[in-house]
Amino acid sequence: MALDHTWYTEQWAEQGAAISLKIRDKVHDEQSTYQRIEIYETETFGTLMTLDGLVMVTDRDNFIYHEMMSHPALFTHPNPRRVLIIGGGDCSTLREVLKHSTVELAEQVELDERVTRVAEKFFPDLCASNDDPRARLHFADGIEWVARAAPGSYDVIIIDSTDPVGPAAGLFSETFYRDCLRALGKDGIVVGQSESPLFHAELIRSVHRALRSAGFRDVLTLNFPQCTYPSGWWSATLAGNGRPLATFREDDVAAKRVSTRYYNRAIHTAARAAPQFLDELLR
Amino acid sequence: MALDHTWYTEQWAEQGAAISLKIRDKVHDEQSTYQRIEIYETETFGTLMTLDGLVMVTDRDNFIYHEMMSHPALFTHPNPRRVLIIGGGDCSTLREVLKHSTVELAEQVELDERVTRVAEKFFPDLCASNDDPRARLHFADGIEWVARAAPGSYDVIIIDSTDPVGPAAGLFSETFYRDCLRALGKDGIVVGQSESPLFHAELIRSVHRALRSAGFRDVLTLNFPQCTYPSGWWSATLAGNGRPLATFREDDVAAKRVSTRYYNRAIHTAARAAPQFLDELLR
Repeated sequence: MALDHTWYTEQWAEQGAAISLKIRDKVHDEQSTYQRIEIYETETFGTLMTLDGLVMVTDRDNFIYHEMMSHPALFTHPNPRRVLIIGGGDCSTLREVLKHSTVELAEQVELDERVTRVAEKFFPDLCASNDDPRARLHFADGIEWVARAAPGSYDVIIIDSTDPVGPAAGLFSETFYRDCLRALGKDGIVVGQSESPLFHAELIRSVHRALRSAGFRDVLTLNFPQCTYPSGWWSATLAGNGRPLATFREDDVAAKRVSTRYYNRAIHTAARAAPQFLDELLR
Repeated sequence: MALDHTWYTEQWAEQGAAISLKIRDKVHDEQSTYQRIEIYETETFGTLMTLDGLVMVTDRDNFIYHEMMSHPALFTHPNPRRVLIIGGGDCSTLREVLKHSTVELAEQVELDERVTRVAEKFFPDLCASNDDPRARLHFADGIEWVARAAPGSYDVIIIDSTDPVGPAAGLFSETFYRDCLRALGKDGIVVGQSESPLFHAELIRSVHRALRSAGFRDVLTLNFPQCTYPSGWWSATLAGNGRPLATFREDDVAAKRVSTRYYNRAIHTAARAAPQFLDELLR
């Protein structure tokens, strides 16, 4: 049956599929310098933010994505003190990162300040750590930021980007990954969102190749559900050059000093399992 | 934006969400004794079957569900010879079961013969093993079938059912699970689809409770992505009374005599990991 205007619909045109969320009201709509930012109150997913018509965040299911973008990398690094977040304007990755007591500095470099200002208003929970003294919010081009970063200046770089089109396309390139490698210290880890295993397996393969070409010896994709992203299934890809990514600080995870709703020790291990078709593609 | 009639839409009304698939044509539509059976040709998901307006199967993504409904249970049982499938009218679970050389008899008990006949016409790949000499297709009430089964007559019972409403509601009940336990032999395992961890966590908890009340000592939920089912994230729950469900025939899986596209040894292990919120709910 057709859905009327009481639904927000995101078409994944190339995939011939769409997801819809029942909405009560649109509560914000602006065209920033970079994109259209819309906020809806939904019936059952809480507040929804879209950028150029694509779901970025809902209250109900964002925890999975943001936990998986941050905790696996931070619990793999032996002592993450300096973290850089590229994108992540809704500030939820920042909040997860700051749950780690080892972190001394968390810098977020978001291109569009308006995304963060709108998130501060409509997603106060996600922005709850913005005033943490260890947080620095910059509004600048992440690609340039990393290119200019001092060598070895970060322990973990998190690429919390939009899809690989438009301004975010460069965040999936070998050149950018090479700059990340240079900006990382010993045992440094970069992690980027890498789209849907079902819809974008070829992209995941190209991310692996670009990371290896850039000089990373160890590359690992994590899988997790994400209801409101295309196909409901998402991935993050880690790369490092130091200790193997296959091991992590399991005892520190088990100690549960970092509160989570999705992530835990078993989930960290599980997320590394590659489905057969992806295993064959990446081999 | 609104979606027009060139889209098939399934509303998950209580969840305030919907999924849509772009369709080329509806190629079949009938009202059977039990339900409305519709077949569509989609743009990118191949053929789609819906029952009473709910997605049952698409060519593109059914492999994940059907592999996860069959292989974990069959590779956990030490020597699965006699398998019963309740529901499963599209015959794809049957096909997966028959990939196991240990299986001597696979009985499928589907209520609605028309589902199977329509599947044979529109999903020939899924029905490719219907003529296997080890296969028996029955069209009968699964609840009665299990109640009348001789004690110890099956090694694995797979409940490949629709949602727990209408005729399928009884397939989620303690009474039914008790009959399953009686019908199972030593080390017998029952596995049932148990809906979405994100949308139906309380149902998963009630399934655990009902299985334990029915006399199963060991209960284990597996998680996996399933793009076209509500939330894109699905689960199957196993129960047994013999060997622990936490171990399985890993060497047999690794030998890859059973061809799969999603399932493998790492995925089997991974699927057992409970997200933190579900772990806390089920504890």
